[in-house]
Amino acid sequence: MNPPRFITLEGIEGAGKSTAIQFIQSWMQQANIPHLLTREPGGTEIAEAIRSVLLLKNYQEKMAADTELLLMFASRAQHLAHVIMPALQRGEWVICDRFTDATYAYQGGGRGIPYDRIAQIETWVQGPMRPDRVILLDLPAAIGMERVKKRQLQSDRIEQEKISFFERVREAYLGRAQADPERYRVIDASQSLEKVQLGIADILAQ
Amino acid sequence: MNPPRFITLEGIEGAGKSTAIQFIQSWMQQANIPHLLTREPGGTEIAEAIRSVLLLKNYQEKMAADTELLLMFASRAQHLAHVIMPALQRGEWVICDRFTDATYAYQGGGRGIPYDRIAQIETWVQGPMRPDRVILLDLPAAIGMERVKKRQLQSDRIEQEKISFFERVREAYLGRAQADPERYRVIDASQSLEKVQLGIADILAQ
Repeated sequence: MNPPRFITLEGIEGAGKSTAIQFIQSWMQQANIPHLLTREPGGTEIAEAIRSVLLLKNYQEKMAADTELLLMFASRAQHLAHVIMPALQRGEWVICDRFTDATYAYQGGGRGIPYDRIAQIETWVQGPMRPDRVILLDLPAAIGMERVKKRQLQSDRIEQEKISFFERVREAYLGRAQADPERYRVIDASQSLEKVQLGIADILAQ
Repeated sequence: MNPPRFITLEGIEGAGKSTAIQFIQSWMQQANIPHLLTREPGGTEIAEAIRSVLLLKNYQEKMAADTELLLMFASRAQHLAHVIMPALQRGEWVICDRFTDATYAYQGGGRGIPYDRIAQIETWVQGPMRPDRVILLDLPAAIGMERVKKRQLQSDRIEQEKISFFERVREAYLGRAQADPERYRVIDASQSLEKVQLGIADILAQ
């Protein structure tokens, strides 16, 4: 039996993460692998309460970038302690919809917090703990935004950013993937759903 | 004219901070010093939203100590950016009901997070920024708890801790005051209200 694995799924809005998560779930069930699906920000009661503070959009004031980053990691610390670490210790695989790479991409690439400042908090919260595999669903921000617009009337505080913001997020994701090809797998998410799923199945089978 | 000053008021529950804040306000008005009173956790709309997450008590799960600490600093980053720094830049004195010393006392002394771990986040958020003067209203935890019980029926998540917790908080406060007598002033808050106020007036006049 393989050791338990911590796999995260990353990508900008409209990259198809939710559909991919469902596909991964079916794949795990067929392969008979005990697993847990979860998401960030959120994943526990307190982490979801923090998520609400993060995504509410009708504040009169602007949220400071440092505040946003610390809220992300506050939620993550709770999620790690109450969900992710216990599942891995029970021998389950953990599949997480977004994790620390999203912080580098959104609060780093998007908001401009230097990566080394983010790395300080990452190590403070996680110690040496990192995902075993990061699957990046990559596509141009314009296509992602168009998909998001089609499926929903309401967007949250972060989704309301401009395309240039999401292009910076995408570049940050790609930069991280290129810097560490051992841990990252990039899938072209502008392809057909079938091809994306074949790509994911390949990665999971490795 | 004196340069603007950042003064914080610290102490365990029941130490009399609220009454002291009112006294400081009158003193500042009489001395004709432009000033701003604020509090932590909270002080801005988003910081108050974080405060609610921090103090809500009917969670089914326990809040991880790291989560609590990061929420405190997330709230503080917002408070500094939107309230404290702008007021100091306008030339006003800022009087804050609790600040980072409370994090050392509650999340450090109380919850057991090592002080050097707290110092890392303090520097990450504040850079070299520290209060010019910390007024510590000191009293035994048992007396503080008795006062709190008399005045309210409901206590929040942190106030529900046991006396031993608040004794550790008090010791942490005293330890910090002893280590840096230049910046800290300790007032015996078990004295009569009049004596406490005389003590505060003395400190403000310095």
